[in-house]
Amino acid sequence: MQRSSVTWRGAVWMMAVLAVGAASTPAAAQSGTLDAATLEEYIAFLSLPNDAANPADALANARFVQAMMQRRGIASELLYDIDRKAPPAVFGEVKTPGATKTIVFYAHYDGQPVVPERWAAGLSPFRPVAISRPIEQGGTVLGPWTPAARFPAGWRIAARSAADDKAGVMVALNAFRDPAGTAARLGVNVKFFFEGEEEKGSPHLRAILHAHSEKLTSDLWVMVDGPRHTAGYRTMVLGVRGVVDVGITIYGANRPLHAGNYGNWAPNPALRLAALLGSLKDADGRILIPGFYDDAVPATAAELAEIAKAPSMDATRQSLGIARTQGGGKLHGELVLLPGIEITGLRAGATGASAANVIPTEAEARLDMRLVKGDRIDRQLARLVRFVEAKGYYVLDRTPTAEERLAHPLIARVVSGFGYEAQRTALAEPMVTRVKHVLESVSPDRLVVVPSTGGSLPLSLFASELGAPMVTIPVVNADNNQHGENENVDPAFLATGITNIRAIMEDDFSDP
Amino acid sequence: MQRSSVTWRGAVWMMAVLAVGAASTPAAAQSGTLDAATLEEYIAFLSLPNDAANPADALANARFVQAMMQRRGIASELLYDIDRKAPPAVFGEVKTPGATKTIVFYAHYDGQPVVPERWAAGLSPFRPVAISRPIEQGGTVLGPWTPAARFPAGWRIAARSAADDKAGVMVALNAFRDPAGTAARLGVNVKFFFEGEEEKGSPHLRAILHAHSEKLTSDLWVMVDGPRHTAGYRTMVLGVRGVVDVGITIYGANRPLHAGNYGNWAPNPALRLAALLGSLKDADGRILIPGFYDDAVPATAAELAEIAKAPSMDATRQSLGIARTQGGGKLHGELVLLPGIEITGLRAGATGASAANVIPTEAEARLDMRLVKGDRIDRQLARLVRFVEAKGYYVLDRTPTAEERLAHPLIARVVSGFGYEAQRTALAEPMVTRVKHVLESVSPDRLVVVPSTGGSLPLSLFASELGAPMVTIPVVNADNNQHGENENVDPAFLATGITNIRAIMEDDFSDP
Repeated sequence: MQRSSVTWRGAVWMMAVLAVGAASTPAAAQSGTLDAATLEEYIAFLSLPNDAANPADALANARFVQAMMQRRGIASELLYDIDRKAPPAVFGEVKTPGATKTIVFYAHYDGQPVVPERWAAGLSPFRPVAISRPIEQGGTVLGPWTPAARFPAGWRIAARSAADDKAGVMVALNAFRDPAGTAARLGVNVKFFFEGEEEKGSPHLRAILHAHSEKLTSDLWVMVDGPRHTAGYRTMVLGVRGVVDVGITIYGANRPLHAGNYGNWAPNPALRLAALLGSLKDADGRILIPGFYDDAVPATAAELAEIAKAPSMDATRQSLGIARTQGGGKLHGELVLLPGIEITGLRAGATGASAANVIPTEAEARLDMRLVKGDRIDRQLARLVRFVEAKGYYVLDRTPTAEERLAHPLIARVVSGFGYEAQRTALAEPMVTRVKHVLESVSPDRLVVVPSTGGSLPLSLFASELGAPMVTIPVVNADNNQHGENENVDPAFLATGITNIRAIMEDDFSDP
Repeated sequence: MQRSSVTWRGAVWMMAVLAVGAASTPAAAQSGTLDAATLEEYIAFLSLPNDAANPADALANARFVQAMMQRRGIASELLYDIDRKAPPAVFGEVKTPGATKTIVFYAHYDGQPVVPERWAAGLSPFRPVAISRPIEQGGTVLGPWTPAARFPAGWRIAARSAADDKAGVMVALNAFRDPAGTAARLGVNVKFFFEGEEEKGSPHLRAILHAHSEKLTSDLWVMVDGPRHTAGYRTMVLGVRGVVDVGITIYGANRPLHAGNYGNWAPNPALRLAALLGSLKDADGRILIPGFYDDAVPATAAELAEIAKAPSMDATRQSLGIARTQGGGKLHGELVLLPGIEITGLRAGATGASAANVIPTEAEARLDMRLVKGDRIDRQLARLVRFVEAKGYYVLDRTPTAEERLAHPLIARVVSGFGYEAQRTALAEPMVTRVKHVLESVSPDRLVVVPSTGGSLPLSLFASELGAPMVTIPVVNADNNQHGENENVDPAFLATGITNIRAIMEDDFSDP
């Protein structure tokens, strides 16, 4: 899917890429262990191919999840959109006597497509094996997991979706099954919503939510997806930016022209595109489009306080080979609470071996436009178009006609793709405040609160369809290679995740 | 060859591309006819494959040219460079009793590589056939030429190198053979130099000229290559621009970064490249690099007078779909007497179907830098580097090290390719003045004098190795598809070319 990079995994990818060069996993993350039955079931789950492009595979996974629920006494059903062609979401519900609040736990059972030949020797996407550590960090194959196997601390399960996001399904359902054996009672009504098409960009999610909105009413959604902070800290994410991509094409002559014979005379669309894009930001990275920041809801004092507490990005900056960051020295967390535009693609003519001395006929840029709470896609796009027009361009959303080319010296085509707006749950939202309190109570280990990731997920879709607040609780290790080859998960992270999610289920949320 | 687009054909390509939409061939160009023996020999010549990449093919062509010379009583030899591996040049010489001046006629017998399957049905690169007009203009195959064939006016011979540049060899040698049968005597000593590697960028030409410079002494070189003006007018070209290509790479983080999660924070090399390139020129296209125009020898009054007389480019502008040209309204001919920079390639990240929401690690541009008389490659490159440095960049000619990345916020790699300088023969040069007089005397048909093409040829190499002045007299029709499929030549142009070149041979150049 073209949009795949800005779907759920977009928001959590940051932590994944930060993983390289991150500190080693703190001991806290390794607390807890998984019993043999839990591991055996998870290995079986990971053995099912789960690319949503294969409907039969998707359904087999959905049925497996239903069986997991059945073993835990959870009534389940498959939720389809009206066409019933897309992979279904698996829904489950358990009422808790006396509970006044209902929480839906979200995860997705589908995974990214695989390229098996890229996986390391001894690894295969749907034949889980134990490895000593991530392959990229020098890990070696320990062999298949068996109930009798004893592996050294830090071992991983290597398989597609071991981390993204069968881990979320696994953690949510095992949290429900009294993992500590304390027979503590649940404090809330629990619902589960396990999507089957997330890695394709959730194209039918809105329709499914819309068709089953009554069934999905709740007081809070807890999204169990994505990796924890790269340093291994527990993480709680309260929002995401919105996103829309934009294509800009500038036109020159209607056929390629010899750069020597026509240079100085014919307009060069590559030069014009450069001049246009070069005027988008000042030297500090501040966007110069009039009004671009006007609709953004400013960060609250509480959000700024969490950002100030967040671990430093300086080691990340250094590992990325960046001498100086943008944004006038503002913190990363503060910068991603601002709308943004990044150039993600430039193309005109040719460079390298295929270069020719030719003035290109057109020059194209792709922009990644991010929105924050308060921003609207239509208003931001209109501002961009007005900015281009103010530079003297005749702006179209299609290729110019021959007549238009001769009538307008400067022509730009500006088109936008699919997009969605931002979602940000306030820290002061009582259900969220309580989740934070629960997580801080269950363990002394550090909890990093992220007011918003810079990346995007279609959480605004849950907000607009269902209205409930939401919080994302990632549970897996950041060096999990999600989406790539040799995906892995650290079972100790799964165990800690189960403990944390269980704590949320046990609380009655009467305090807020 | 990477540099192929700026070799000989570069300079004449302008006229070729202008051909589309040009006026039909004036009657003048169709004066003269070729006799059957001349055509038969030419068809045989065109039947020899002549890609210089195949040494045996090249040698077969050189031997054929020697046989043509032998039939005309011209003593010939093959000129090699010291390694004797490259295709040889064919050299011939005829002394004229009483002559005081010597003129060398240049052409090349090699041709561009062919892709036979791209040629129209019935056409094959090395099986010449007659066509009614260019295939792209609706031409049809008339059949193979035979001595008995009678084709309608405007017919063409379709074959590789029919125009570029076996036509030059053919015209020069047939001009020597008293084509009008008047038994008029030659007025100058005549030499021939037919290169065999031009379409590969003439990599051994300097060595050949250097090794045989004594043999090649002359008072004038006449280059018989390239198409005449698109409107069919006779054309005389006095110079070419020099060229050097430049690659600029701007660096960001050392790995691709999620545009949402790192946007506003991480530097974006695509944005920086855009800002840098966008500052290269003002809105009128004038280059803002300090000193960039300082070394250029200004156009003389005589050159400006010829430019003012040149046919209007307005029909070309319209056919190209250009509403307004660059250069503040200056004429095309005047603009190509200025140095130039064109962006011929831009690349960063990805656009279109492969686009991703990623901040690229680097952004790359390719620039085509043109030089005019007076400009030196080293000085122009140094000015560009200083300009980039003045924007705050640390400039390298290689990839930065990890330490350099962390030490310098702005890093640019600037590298240059092979290049050569401009060549421009003054209109006032006596041999050139006389050529113009001869051409104006031999026919009342319009003669377009081009002080310099915008494109480039390594003519400066002849100038530096041999010192003689030079003039280019193109002879073939502009709609000849040189370098492409379905290459063709109008035999009427060949006949006119023979008449014109013969006139130069008959003059004794005693007047200057």
